[in-house]
Amino acid sequence: MSIIILHGDIVYAPSADELAIHENSYIVVKEGCVEGIYPEVPEQYKGVPVTDYGRKMIIPAFSDLHVHASQYVQRGIGMDCLLSDWLNNYTFPQESRFSDMEYAKNCYDAFVDDLIRHGTFHVNAFATIHREATDYLFNRLEEKGLYGYVGKVNMDCNSPDFLIETTEESLRETEVYLDSHKGSKRVKAILAPRFAPTCSKPLIDGLGKLAAKYACGVHTHLVESLWEAEEALRLFPEYGSDAEIYERAGLMNHGPSIFAHVIFPSKEDIRILKKHGSYAVHCPDATTNIIAGIMPVQRLNEQGMKITLGSDIAGGHGIAIYKQVARAVQLSKLKEFYEPSESKTITLTQAFYHATKEAGSAFGKVGSFEKGYLFNALVIDTMEDPWMTMTAEERLERFCYIGDDRNIRARYIEGREL
Amino acid sequence: MSIIILHGDIVYAPSADELAIHENSYIVVKEGCVEGIYPEVPEQYKGVPVTDYGRKMIIPAFSDLHVHASQYVQRGIGMDCLLSDWLNNYTFPQESRFSDMEYAKNCYDAFVDDLIRHGTFHVNAFATIHREATDYLFNRLEEKGLYGYVGKVNMDCNSPDFLIETTEESLRETEVYLDSHKGSKRVKAILAPRFAPTCSKPLIDGLGKLAAKYACGVHTHLVESLWEAEEALRLFPEYGSDAEIYERAGLMNHGPSIFAHVIFPSKEDIRILKKHGSYAVHCPDATTNIIAGIMPVQRLNEQGMKITLGSDIAGGHGIAIYKQVARAVQLSKLKEFYEPSESKTITLTQAFYHATKEAGSAFGKVGSFEKGYLFNALVIDTMEDPWMTMTAEERLERFCYIGDDRNIRARYIEGREL
Repeated sequence: MSIIILHGDIVYAPSADELAIHENSYIVVKEGCVEGIYPEVPEQYKGVPVTDYGRKMIIPAFSDLHVHASQYVQRGIGMDCLLSDWLNNYTFPQESRFSDMEYAKNCYDAFVDDLIRHGTFHVNAFATIHREATDYLFNRLEEKGLYGYVGKVNMDCNSPDFLIETTEESLRETEVYLDSHKGSKRVKAILAPRFAPTCSKPLIDGLGKLAAKYACGVHTHLVESLWEAEEALRLFPEYGSDAEIYERAGLMNHGPSIFAHVIFPSKEDIRILKKHGSYAVHCPDATTNIIAGIMPVQRLNEQGMKITLGSDIAGGHGIAIYKQVARAVQLSKLKEFYEPSESKTITLTQAFYHATKEAGSAFGKVGSFEKGYLFNALVIDTMEDPWMTMTAEERLERFCYIGDDRNIRARYIEGREL
Repeated sequence: MSIIILHGDIVYAPSADELAIHENSYIVVKEGCVEGIYPEVPEQYKGVPVTDYGRKMIIPAFSDLHVHASQYVQRGIGMDCLLSDWLNNYTFPQESRFSDMEYAKNCYDAFVDDLIRHGTFHVNAFATIHREATDYLFNRLEEKGLYGYVGKVNMDCNSPDFLIETTEESLRETEVYLDSHKGSKRVKAILAPRFAPTCSKPLIDGLGKLAAKYACGVHTHLVESLWEAEEALRLFPEYGSDAEIYERAGLMNHGPSIFAHVIFPSKEDIRILKKHGSYAVHCPDATTNIIAGIMPVQRLNEQGMKITLGSDIAGGHGIAIYKQVARAVQLSKLKEFYEPSESKTITLTQAFYHATKEAGSAFGKVGSFEKGYLFNALVIDTMEDPWMTMTAEERLERFCYIGDDRNIRARYIEGREL
């Protein structure tokens, strides 16, 4: 039986209100799963060698629940454009290049390497409409041992000529894609209608049938801006809410339903998302960059919605989810400043919980160190200046606010060091 | 005569509306100052060796117009506290430790090294009330060749017992401090009343006399929050605006007057600041973290106010001014989203201008590459993924959004490589 033991300051968030801190402790990992955390090595494990990380922190690896892998190459540019200019001048022409497999490979290889570098081991990614390139991303994540959902994007209307499919083509290619990844393990196919404004009703309904046939979930954008919320209902006039479009198509019954942004949810949206245990993905930098608004994280969390974090590359500029943890706290402050009746400030612990255990639940038992969780973990520098000490909570906070990939000193997936 | 020539993509902002871009060009630096930028090495310089940076960017070094050097050790912690808790639990106890010179040296050495690492060569810094430690910071900046203003903080009321001076003590120590740095060159003493709520009228008036006697400027916080704006006028009821407190004391006539935050300026504040050519310092991360609000940058710029950027360590968590350039664009978007009648979105070029040429003007001819400007400069990576090219403007933007100190490949002060 494979057993490893690591020593360090072990930190994770079992709930939004609690940061579990085991300083100077030992974590025992059996067959890739957490067996327990102990102040001393228990008698029965005395013979197992200990990897000693001193006062470095051992934390769960991060999950990114909304990222456009195909936009990785355009991260951090065109950020002072309006959304429509950014889409038309950067995003759409760039995504159209994924018909070129050479380009796609370069982009997706760099994307996956950067995820690993920044400690994101579980990822829910949009690709593009191109099936072959989407397959490549799927396989690349699997090769590297990451956990993920990958979606071939669907868009059959209101899109530029060079980046649009017919409804039939879109459904056919999606089915080939789903079929070829049946029975996959760590990485799974997910349906990815771009969003209601670029999908016809026949397309959405067709995807609903594929969801049932291939037992897969859905990943899209929901009430991401006032414009989108209105446009979705203008195009789907017989529906009462944005979420209902996906629910009535049967897209929320066969796997995780993951909705990016959720900034302006109606009561009906909230009811539908809660009913299906859906994930709402907060992407702080992205919704700032695209001037969409700020998700009412504290309120939605109190209302029992599952809240997670996303980088939303390249609406968001940075791939590091730990930075979005800090940014989520920051934006909650601005939200309270401007809309005190809408939502309140959140704590670092809460944001960290959303980025680890809550988001991780979309992939299985990852994102925590409770017994039985997979040991997908990061070892983080002490983050201290040499002449002063800090609490573990402060060190975690400092990592999220000013850390970078250099502060990630080791990476483990299923108990195996990368 | 000392002449150096560098080749690369040379980028600077002569105004808020213009990014000057000289790709594949040569910059000639004579006696530390920019002589000119040329597409080819001019005939008369043919013998001078060229340092070739290829397609790397050469940009002016940054200026940080508002930073609490003494709070460097607490950066990125306590960020989810309310301001009062943050001050009482972190900031005040921590600042009180600067009576210990060992602690002060450790902190200020690390602070100055980090400024250099991140390309900030011109800095306007608060120290603490402790003169000896403030002297140390002053000398350390000078030793390292940086440009700066350093202020011994004044606070004689409404402050914790362990971090307060009597009015007499405060004025006496300040005068000793000013006197000992008379005639200094790159680094200069500045007056630093913490802000009106912690300074009595006799203290402010006394500092006004010292300003005249020692010909020095002032650095403080102004209308930094709704609370501060009201509290200042409650304590100084005979004044019509926050700025008038400093103006009537004669603090704005003898050197640069530099005001942090300026989030809620009255018409009178704006009139007074413009009259004295004062600098308003926008600190995007800090005013988010302390829930103060967002400076109306675009409007104040249009009204002719000098706008600059500050890290405001440790209200702000990061020392890198290039990241505040990106953050200034981001916050301008949120400002327009929430208060469209107050201020509009700004461009990356505008934010970069505030952080370089406009802020640099407080220190002399730094922050631009026009003829006669000191060559205080950074060489920045191409920022490109190897399989695609970007414009110089995009590369600058990417550096501000996702770059870090690793992307700064060389540093020059007065034409001398560090």
